[in-house]
Amino acid sequence: MKRSFIREILEHTTNETISFAGGLPDVKLFPTKKLLSSAQKVLNDAKSLQYTTSTGIKELKEQIAQQYCEYGFETKESNIMITSGSQQALDIISRFYNNRDITIESPSYLGAMNVFDLNNLNQDCITLHNDGIDMNKFDKSFKKSKFTYLIPDYQNPTGYSYSNQKREEIAKIVKQYDGILIEDCPYSDIYFDKKNTSISSLIPNNSFNLGSFSKILAPSFRIGWIRADEKLIEPLIAYKEAMDLHTNGLSQYILSDYLKDNDEFNSHLKYLRKSYRKKMQIFSSYLDDILPQFEYEKPKGGMFIYGRLPNINTKDLVKKCLENGVVFVPGIEFYDSSEITDEIRFNFTSCSPKEIFIGLNIILQTIKEERN
Amino acid sequence: MKRSFIREILEHTTNETISFAGGLPDVKLFPTKKLLSSAQKVLNDAKSLQYTTSTGIKELKEQIAQQYCEYGFETKESNIMITSGSQQALDIISRFYNNRDITIESPSYLGAMNVFDLNNLNQDCITLHNDGIDMNKFDKSFKKSKFTYLIPDYQNPTGYSYSNQKREEIAKIVKQYDGILIEDCPYSDIYFDKKNTSISSLIPNNSFNLGSFSKILAPSFRIGWIRADEKLIEPLIAYKEAMDLHTNGLSQYILSDYLKDNDEFNSHLKYLRKSYRKKMQIFSSYLDDILPQFEYEKPKGGMFIYGRLPNINTKDLVKKCLENGVVFVPGIEFYDSSEITDEIRFNFTSCSPKEIFIGLNIILQTIKEERN
Repeated sequence: MKRSFIREILEHTTNETISFAGGLPDVKLFPTKKLLSSAQKVLNDAKSLQYTTSTGIKELKEQIAQQYCEYGFETKESNIMITSGSQQALDIISRFYNNRDITIESPSYLGAMNVFDLNNLNQDCITLHNDGIDMNKFDKSFKKSKFTYLIPDYQNPTGYSYSNQKREEIAKIVKQYDGILIEDCPYSDIYFDKKNTSISSLIPNNSFNLGSFSKILAPSFRIGWIRADEKLIEPLIAYKEAMDLHTNGLSQYILSDYLKDNDEFNSHLKYLRKSYRKKMQIFSSYLDDILPQFEYEKPKGGMFIYGRLPNINTKDLVKKCLENGVVFVPGIEFYDSSEITDEIRFNFTSCSPKEIFIGLNIILQTIKEERN
Repeated sequence: MKRSFIREILEHTTNETISFAGGLPDVKLFPTKKLLSSAQKVLNDAKSLQYTTSTGIKELKEQIAQQYCEYGFETKESNIMITSGSQQALDIISRFYNNRDITIESPSYLGAMNVFDLNNLNQDCITLHNDGIDMNKFDKSFKKSKFTYLIPDYQNPTGYSYSNQKREEIAKIVKQYDGILIEDCPYSDIYFDKKNTSISSLIPNNSFNLGSFSKILAPSFRIGWIRADEKLIEPLIAYKEAMDLHTNGLSQYILSDYLKDNDEFNSHLKYLRKSYRKKMQIFSSYLDDILPQFEYEKPKGGMFIYGRLPNINTKDLVKKCLENGVVFVPGIEFYDSSEITDEIRFNFTSCSPKEIFIGLNIILQTIKEERN
């Protein structure tokens, strides 16, 4: 199995490297003080350090269920399983449904593609347009696979979001063939305008909806979850148990305490959306000035700007850029094929405006050097 | 896949149930205050909440390596991979070495047997004596499997420890066939007399040594590790990455800060050993008074007392006991066969002397009721 380019980069960049590579949230936006105050409360009770249940602590599952209910997606505590990040959710599900076909977007999230490989899922990669997956090809593929993995909101890597029409069509097809949708929603709460309707909410008996606190609170907690019908959750419990007994309890208790103050959490999310929207605009405006040849579409949420530098092999470019102190992910990393060579994914959330300016200028200089 | 009896019990017991079932450490012994003080330092730096590297944070890996060096087992940071508990370490390793034979002790740790099943390892279960595995049978089995999983110190469930002679013989056999030993050491630091020599230290190029903070500091952190030659660690990194990106960062930073005060950690361990030794003596003395028919041998460390109640089906007994408010694990859960019906594993670390007294008396009463 090959290692993720992004994870390897994380291990090889220095503190000086300007990174547009990882899907890193902005450390300045972590609600550190509030989390510390929760940690203080939690660590006063030694029981928070004991073993806990495999599906997660009850309070946190209830709070997550409540959030779904607020968006009109009826959910009970028993519909939730806490996982060690949504990466583990992908592993648990694809491990249970191993050795079959799966219909995915092309390009797609590298971490999902890797874990599908690990579980011997045969990936059928369908072109993703800026309003969602190609529906004709999806229909044909899903008819055979009856299993699909989609990221409908501010997709990784493209930043694209599905139109309401495509959301409904997909729900219809999944239901028609009585198949399974894995809907990955790590960025769904980072909308710049309004929240989208999740496809899962249209087909609650045929879907796994994956959520995570990594992008909206703090990645190092590694707290994600699966929302699904109880009949779908039940057989996964033995897998979760065999894989790591249960997810880190301390972090679950801290998050649960933090979430008790609903106003605080909502105002944090509001601030996060506003800040990332502004960062996206800054990144986009510098891109237009410094690299006007970069073709892209502004995302409506999430953490990524995706596009192409026509006639430039971006995998070669990134190696030179890394030597010059800046890094991004070449689009080819997100494909199953080796045809796409000129695409780039930029993360716009983790760098300061100054770093964005310097980083993009280094890329410009590197391109110029290559031409000479 | 069947769920673990112990994990299911954890979800079904009430706050009033007296539990001798789980391998739960005593919550009163968690160094909560010191951990809180570390948490306060760590949460002052927002970077502790960001994504981190897949093999674990450098400081913690160095500290763990240093502990091995102190016991005379030369180890570098690059020999360590941090995992989400040693349960995940078992999953990563057995997932990489899937679809082959593995030689294990009988009885053995249920969580290992489950994860070996999940990874299609064909388990050859060899009788465990009170001084270690049956050597004749082990030699024959390992010659074929070249892969073994052992818990040489205060084994789970039996509490047995390997003699020095058997440790040396096993090292010799593993080396002779150039095979792989997984040596699971969650209880190795909970010795009542002196620390044993790890088998891995005799064959550093042919072994995975697994450690964990769950039993000696706090389970809810879910921090374990693999110690192995770099050549053995390297191919596991992509697996770890695909499985959960990395282990909870917050807990890694808190533990690393806590471990900086070496005197504090050592005196905590000393106190833990003393307390558990005393608890074992109390449990054993109540056992001798209340259930004199229970045949067992006092363990030299760890968390379990194991033995048999002649002519009593302990799986039937535990169901009745649970109704009466006490629970233990019937030995049959730790076997691959259904022949052994009268064995019991008692955890002696998590209950108070009063609960031990009451719990054992409830068992006695339940046995009497059944006879009438």
